[in-house]
Amino acid sequence: MITKEDFKEVCETSIKMIEDAGLLLTEVDKSKMTAADFGLNHIKKEGVQILTMFQTERIAGKILVLLPNQTEPEHWHPTVGDDAGKEEVIRAISGNLRFYIPGKDTFKEGFIVDGKEECYTMRNEIVMKPGDQLVLPAGTKHWFQAGEEGAVMYSFSTTVTDLNDQFTDPDIVRETIIEGITTNAY
Amino acid sequence: MITKEDFKEVCETSIKMIEDAGLLLTEVDKSKMTAADFGLNHIKKEGVQILTMFQTERIAGKILVLLPNQTEPEHWHPTVGDDAGKEEVIRAISGNLRFYIPGKDTFKEGFIVDGKEECYTMRNEIVMKPGDQLVLPAGTKHWFQAGEEGAVMYSFSTTVTDLNDQFTDPDIVRETIIEGITTNAY
Repeated sequence: MITKEDFKEVCETSIKMIEDAGLLLTEVDKSKMTAADFGLNHIKKEGVQILTMFQTERIAGKILVLLPNQTEPEHWHPTVGDDAGKEEVIRAISGNLRFYIPGKDTFKEGFIVDGKEECYTMRNEIVMKPGDQLVLPAGTKHWFQAGEEGAVMYSFSTTVTDLNDQFTDPDIVRETIIEGITTNAY
Repeated sequence: MITKEDFKEVCETSIKMIEDAGLLLTEVDKSKMTAADFGLNHIKKEGVQILTMFQTERIAGKILVLLPNQTEPEHWHPTVGDDAGKEEVIRAISGNLRFYIPGKDTFKEGFIVDGKEECYTMRNEIVMKPGDQLVLPAGTKHWFQAGEEGAVMYSFSTTVTDLNDQFTDPDIVRETIIEGITTNAY
């Protein structure tokens, strides 16, 4: 659960970070800013802020914001039946950003959330500077983390129901609860 | 055909317009800037400049630039066999931009390229301010035009071979020839 005050604070901070990065947001865009704590109850440690620019039945474009040292939990978008699974392209916009994907252990600049070694199993570290891009084919297990400055990035993808997402951390629940309001934010 | 000098000029101008709009381009991005004259041999009147940020087998993200008063010819992305056709989402970034799509004739701010009334049949005018978005489902006939300032926009889409594109103007050839080099730019 997240308090209304914390929800408002992380959303407002994220809007400011996007605008400071030079992106223009309309009032409609700003009204769509939301946050996900994945039911872990400490959003500033594990969570993400999301602004969906557009979502059709086929494609989606979002701006994702990580606060300083915030970590998005490890997850993947599986192939389910006729659904090929969500393919995602990340484009870093500002700040310092680290992605962790399958491959050789090159873990160096990041950190594992206290006591959660088993929930963050991918250790191939991709340090992304502004303008860098990363393609995540459907099914790719991944997590990501910001450094001291936080990070703003685009996420472009095919559209699938995020309810299919799979997480490594068994404590995760998909819905974010904001003091009694349930939202399926991400 | 377009001369090397004109090609270089429209590409360099377009890169500057994107950067002036506050978007960060890497050197890799800049090296991808290209232009299409659709074989009409007057790119500054009818043409478009394109920077492909990414293109996978499923999705694509491009930055499109129109020079002042430049017009992209009317075209559509048809459904062909198993291919549902390209769906496209436009997000205006800077400048002044007009889209023309099916619907009631509301033609007001734009102009038709001299002597080409029959090549620009859509007259439902959508004036797009920075931050505005427009969804073009597969098969939607459309053309677009910049005003005095030119225009920069994102084009996010599903991926299809652009060779399927259909144009209203019978004089259009898909390939752009730059003094002896053939490029399938768009």
